[in-house]
Amino acid sequence: MAVITAVDTFDIRFPTSLSLDGSDAMNPDPDYSAAYVTITTDAGDGLTGHAFVFTIGRGNDVEVAAIRALRDHLEGADVDALLADMGRAARLLTHDSQLRWLGPEKGVMHMAIGAVLDALWDLRAKRAGEPLWLHLSRLSAEELVSVVDFRYLTDALTETEALEILRAAEPGRQERIRQLQAIGYPAYTTTPGWLGYSDDKLARLCREAVADGFPQIKLKVGADLDEDRRRLRIARENVPAGFPIAIDANQRWGVDEAIEWIRGVAEFDPAWVEEPTSPDDVLAHAAIARAVAPVRIATGEHVQNRIVFKQLLQAEGMAVMQIDATRVGGVNENIAHLLLAAKFGVPVCPHAGGVGLCEAVQHLAMFDFVAVSGSMDGRMIEFVDHLHEHFVTPVQVRRGRYLAPSSPGAGTEMLPASIAAHLWHEPVPATAEAPA
Amino acid sequence: MAVITAVDTFDIRFPTSLSLDGSDAMNPDPDYSAAYVTITTDAGDGLTGHAFVFTIGRGNDVEVAAIRALRDHLEGADVDALLADMGRAARLLTHDSQLRWLGPEKGVMHMAIGAVLDALWDLRAKRAGEPLWLHLSRLSAEELVSVVDFRYLTDALTETEALEILRAAEPGRQERIRQLQAIGYPAYTTTPGWLGYSDDKLARLCREAVADGFPQIKLKVGADLDEDRRRLRIARENVPAGFPIAIDANQRWGVDEAIEWIRGVAEFDPAWVEEPTSPDDVLAHAAIARAVAPVRIATGEHVQNRIVFKQLLQAEGMAVMQIDATRVGGVNENIAHLLLAAKFGVPVCPHAGGVGLCEAVQHLAMFDFVAVSGSMDGRMIEFVDHLHEHFVTPVQVRRGRYLAPSSPGAGTEMLPASIAAHLWHEPVPATAEAPA
Repeated sequence: MAVITAVDTFDIRFPTSLSLDGSDAMNPDPDYSAAYVTITTDAGDGLTGHAFVFTIGRGNDVEVAAIRALRDHLEGADVDALLADMGRAARLLTHDSQLRWLGPEKGVMHMAIGAVLDALWDLRAKRAGEPLWLHLSRLSAEELVSVVDFRYLTDALTETEALEILRAAEPGRQERIRQLQAIGYPAYTTTPGWLGYSDDKLARLCREAVADGFPQIKLKVGADLDEDRRRLRIARENVPAGFPIAIDANQRWGVDEAIEWIRGVAEFDPAWVEEPTSPDDVLAHAAIARAVAPVRIATGEHVQNRIVFKQLLQAEGMAVMQIDATRVGGVNENIAHLLLAAKFGVPVCPHAGGVGLCEAVQHLAMFDFVAVSGSMDGRMIEFVDHLHEHFVTPVQVRRGRYLAPSSPGAGTEMLPASIAAHLWHEPVPATAEAPA
Repeated sequence: MAVITAVDTFDIRFPTSLSLDGSDAMNPDPDYSAAYVTITTDAGDGLTGHAFVFTIGRGNDVEVAAIRALRDHLEGADVDALLADMGRAARLLTHDSQLRWLGPEKGVMHMAIGAVLDALWDLRAKRAGEPLWLHLSRLSAEELVSVVDFRYLTDALTETEALEILRAAEPGRQERIRQLQAIGYPAYTTTPGWLGYSDDKLARLCREAVADGFPQIKLKVGADLDEDRRRLRIARENVPAGFPIAIDANQRWGVDEAIEWIRGVAEFDPAWVEEPTSPDDVLAHAAIARAVAPVRIATGEHVQNRIVFKQLLQAEGMAVMQIDATRVGGVNENIAHLLLAAKFGVPVCPHAGGVGLCEAVQHLAMFDFVAVSGSMDGRMIEFVDHLHEHFVTPVQVRRGRYLAPSSPGAGTEMLPASIAAHLWHEPVPATAEAPA
């Protein structure tokens, strides 16, 4: 029997706040960071599982502490048994009755569980010698359903319905795998649109995005309406007529403000309006979506779990689902999201950027194309050209498309030199004594 | 100028899983714990602020790490300025743009912010020489509104409406203060109802609760319907006809299962059904509430923030609001909850138990009576007779009522000897090196 011999964690931070790359209305100065985990076994195959939670700086140490809190479930565990039943692996962590109190299934603890599960998926795909998207795309409908937790989902999606969705997509899997390997998957770029760029830089980056073959760009908005209208006008003047421009408010507004603001930019025909308000506010999303139709509302990068995604779909508050690779309970929960989106007929356009999110989430979108939705129509993965050089298998984006990864694993392994160079050290806090 | 000189944290755990006290369908073996924080200043008044996040064991260290991540905002800060504007203090912590990524406003990081704010409130009330409930009850409507974050609330409650609610309750504040000091506030007890107790013990504890003067008891349910019916029958046989018995499912069910289960116990006339499903699932609560009416649905101990409470009220998914003292962004956010409940005409019956939750939350319920709802009708605070002996000013419950605290502070200070005796030590993890 092979067992897990070590679960190691690393607090990795990049000083991205020194430039204005990545700035938006709610996140003015992010330091892109990874609470990183490696899983080592005594299998003797030389393979390790790697994954991370993406954060934007302060608090990365808290996320590392949360991953460490899971080690007792893993170290010494039979790794073959864990990898063979990833549904059980997820329950082992998510259903820890004491840790559950810290969520349940949300925030720091849930993201930590996601990272550990993703490290297991990385290891499993490496063992199979397949990139994760292909590995998932070759699993049976029954195996895929077995990794999903249907608790709190069945009023919208039952196990039987999930099986039907997956079985309906079984014919053509091989053809779609070949298609992906031949032409890749559409990408859109947020590079032109960060707040804080000069007008000239905005105009130039818009033109470059079109020239580079991207089918859509996205601009950050929400700090000032007049300024947003001015920047949207510049963007429109620097792309072809009818070119899709999405906008992203990063949760800036309440309901009335969102409606007013979106109406104020509607003439620029936004491809979607992203995160108009709190990711927790299903009813607000629904109210905004009704008021601004046919403008489409997109959200998801901060949606905490499948239960909130389910409600956003039930309430028709979201027309584009933006899954995030490291916000939720790992690949397992993201498969639930893909199934929910397919059930409700909503396209999935993953959130990416940060550090490693592009590398991770492309596998989920490609798996969706092969085995769940079976479609690329209206679907694309966000792309930001940041920090890819730190990964063993960085994304390859050509002419506005992600090329299908061919290396084994989940894409989530960083280079040892990058880890070593960006390891963040803080003085160990002195243990406080009980007050006298 | 006086400044904060230290923010110290303590990982305090009680081995409560060794008994079956506190066991329910989702939490079979809790070890009641506190991620505890003290705030020290150089004001020379000898006063320190104390507060905590309640957890149930594993992960208490993660919560401590989250509190530590807030120290840089506090150490060296002008304490008089912070205490004079608690709205600004809350924004300082909640709006840290990097830490916000770990929520936003939910889970481990949000609870940590709540503990720090509560320690400041404890210090502020001690400086005023007043118990927190009385201190809050003497603030002007404007001051109270200034501590609330109305972002994402205004579609249900505006600042103006909040002012109106508070002003409407201003006449009679003095009379209600006297009333509280004379007769206290109603309590109900969960002591009889934990899963795992023998039938004889259940029957005896029901009789004792009635004899002790409690106006309501509560039973845990949700593990097995036949067993729940049997236990409810025993409870009914041991209390007077018509005596209120609430039941608590601790998030056990999906929508259909909840409806079926609640109909299966409706003949026992539950005073409310608590946490029928996921605390994140607003639409499920609404569907269940519609289906089982007039049975009342209660929830809140796991509700992550004011945004979810707002929606539960908007969707009519909750007829009883059960605020928790340490789940959310401190006293500030709980004042938002009290205002929302008053706006929607829903009674607040706080969750308590654990360690120190009774001590903390009584202040909020009493403040609600004096200055917000102005009513005790249908309102009561949960009471569990656990671990009070570890507090400097333990709750006093007599004849089924919480006596109004008279000592200065928020009730959240533990005895130094208790802290020292229950400090939890784990080997310091070795710092992992970057992989070769």
